[in-house]
Amino acid sequence: MEVMKEVEKVQNKVTELIKEGKSIGFVPTMGYLHEGHVRLIKEARKENDFVILSIFINPLQFGEGEDLETYPRDEHHDKKVAEENGADLIFLPSTDSMYPNPLSIHMSVEGRTDALCGRSRPGHFEGVVTVLTKLFHITRPTRTYFGMKDAQQVAVVDALIKDYNFPIELVPVPTVREADGLAKSSRNVHLSAKEREEAPAIQKALQYGRELVCNGETRPEEVVRSTRKFLESQTHGKIDYIELLSYPELEFVKTIERPVILATAVFYEKARLIDNVVFNEKGEETAG
Amino acid sequence: MEVMKEVEKVQNKVTELIKEGKSIGFVPTMGYLHEGHVRLIKEARKENDFVILSIFINPLQFGEGEDLETYPRDEHHDKKVAEENGADLIFLPSTDSMYPNPLSIHMSVEGRTDALCGRSRPGHFEGVVTVLTKLFHITRPTRTYFGMKDAQQVAVVDALIKDYNFPIELVPVPTVREADGLAKSSRNVHLSAKEREEAPAIQKALQYGRELVCNGETRPEEVVRSTRKFLESQTHGKIDYIELLSYPELEFVKTIERPVILATAVFYEKARLIDNVVFNEKGEETAG
Repeated sequence: MEVMKEVEKVQNKVTELIKEGKSIGFVPTMGYLHEGHVRLIKEARKENDFVILSIFINPLQFGEGEDLETYPRDEHHDKKVAEENGADLIFLPSTDSMYPNPLSIHMSVEGRTDALCGRSRPGHFEGVVTVLTKLFHITRPTRTYFGMKDAQQVAVVDALIKDYNFPIELVPVPTVREADGLAKSSRNVHLSAKEREEAPAIQKALQYGRELVCNGETRPEEVVRSTRKFLESQTHGKIDYIELLSYPELEFVKTIERPVILATAVFYEKARLIDNVVFNEKGEETAG
Repeated sequence: MEVMKEVEKVQNKVTELIKEGKSIGFVPTMGYLHEGHVRLIKEARKENDFVILSIFINPLQFGEGEDLETYPRDEHHDKKVAEENGADLIFLPSTDSMYPNPLSIHMSVEGRTDALCGRSRPGHFEGVVTVLTKLFHITRPTRTYFGMKDAQQVAVVDALIKDYNFPIELVPVPTVREADGLAKSSRNVHLSAKEREEAPAIQKALQYGRELVCNGETRPEEVVRSTRKFLESQTHGKIDYIELLSYPELEFVKTIERPVILATAVFYEKARLIDNVVFNEKGEETAG
């Protein structure tokens, strides 16, 4: 496995791969790889000749007071995980090499972000589409892999690729979970023992909401109300939001008659956890 | 020469070309091809295996009250010119195929546009970078060709490519002129006979300004003042602006001690003409 820090080296490598007719799978990450990332790397490995993993903690997508400084880092571990799971190249750029000068041209996101995390993280998705546009141009992938845990991110990347005709296939990958249902996340290490014990209630509550739809409930507000009540009874975490929206448009719906997402974010002492479930009007889970 | 209207067809063709290891030269235009465009096509022909010309009158880059409706069109002529000069493919998309849905993600331009045409055409360069990002992803060129007549556009494309790491080489091509010095433009057809007679004064005035620098003038405001006086004495056209700025940053300078652009825009009855000259601190013309 190759490790490259320089933008230009990766560009040269990719030019060579493209000349050889190789397909490229790209997994963009902020590092501290867990099984969710492993699943993305494995999917990319299955479907492409060459797999690139990037690790870049993008300052642009962190807001004021967010966890940029404390975001966990472990380069040694990440290299091992990437290599063991079949990555061919890790791209580890510095902030200076990604943003050598102030940008003259800015990207902003209007649809799909005035709900869920977008509302409580102003500027977050601007940072995401900016860095992804750069990374996509540097790595020129055939396919790119994103976890459905961050379903809103998948919806925004879907919009980015469609709005700007990127010649890239977006592959959404199901959320990987602990045995007790907690979604894997780099931020789980910041949970206290008691919080860790309570946190599986997040996915349980979302499944509880989904089952209401299986049993005939069609009113979004009723599903949200019951899910909130269930979750509040199971954890001391502070609920940031619980929302039910169309998917992938992430728009308000009056009745559940097409694919929707039921999503939540919960604040614990030192971590904010997110999770979701995507399902159709019958309450059947769908891929996103 | 192939003619394609569908985005997907061009994408498939380009994928094939890239697999074959072919280099692609791309000339984006709004059609009504004149010798300025011919020069771009010829340059692209010289340097690439395959030459794509796009013709798309991009509504996003026209402001309120600008000439979107009257912008001249001649598809038959354009196809002939493109073929005769060595284009391999013309891409002629419809507005609906370029913008099938409202965009969720918007691009804005901050640097390099608060001067010259950017100031009097709010939103113009936003439209330019948006459509170019789409066209670059559809045609995936090795090199792209822009005329120096629109030097500010070249500066903005330079920023777009650098800010977002597009894997594309920008090739600026010198302005093509009529025998009397008037820069070739699709808009010249809208000049009255008298206006056409006066319009060569635009380039003459800019060269007059440049010669002041050859002769030792270093004060931007003095060059601008004299250029304005010269131009006003030679034409009834209304001067929109005359500015002297650093190039390609397009920033205000206190003294002429590095490459600069002296640029102007002049309103005639039915056309607004632009022209410029780029030169160094000795007054020597440079390529831009």
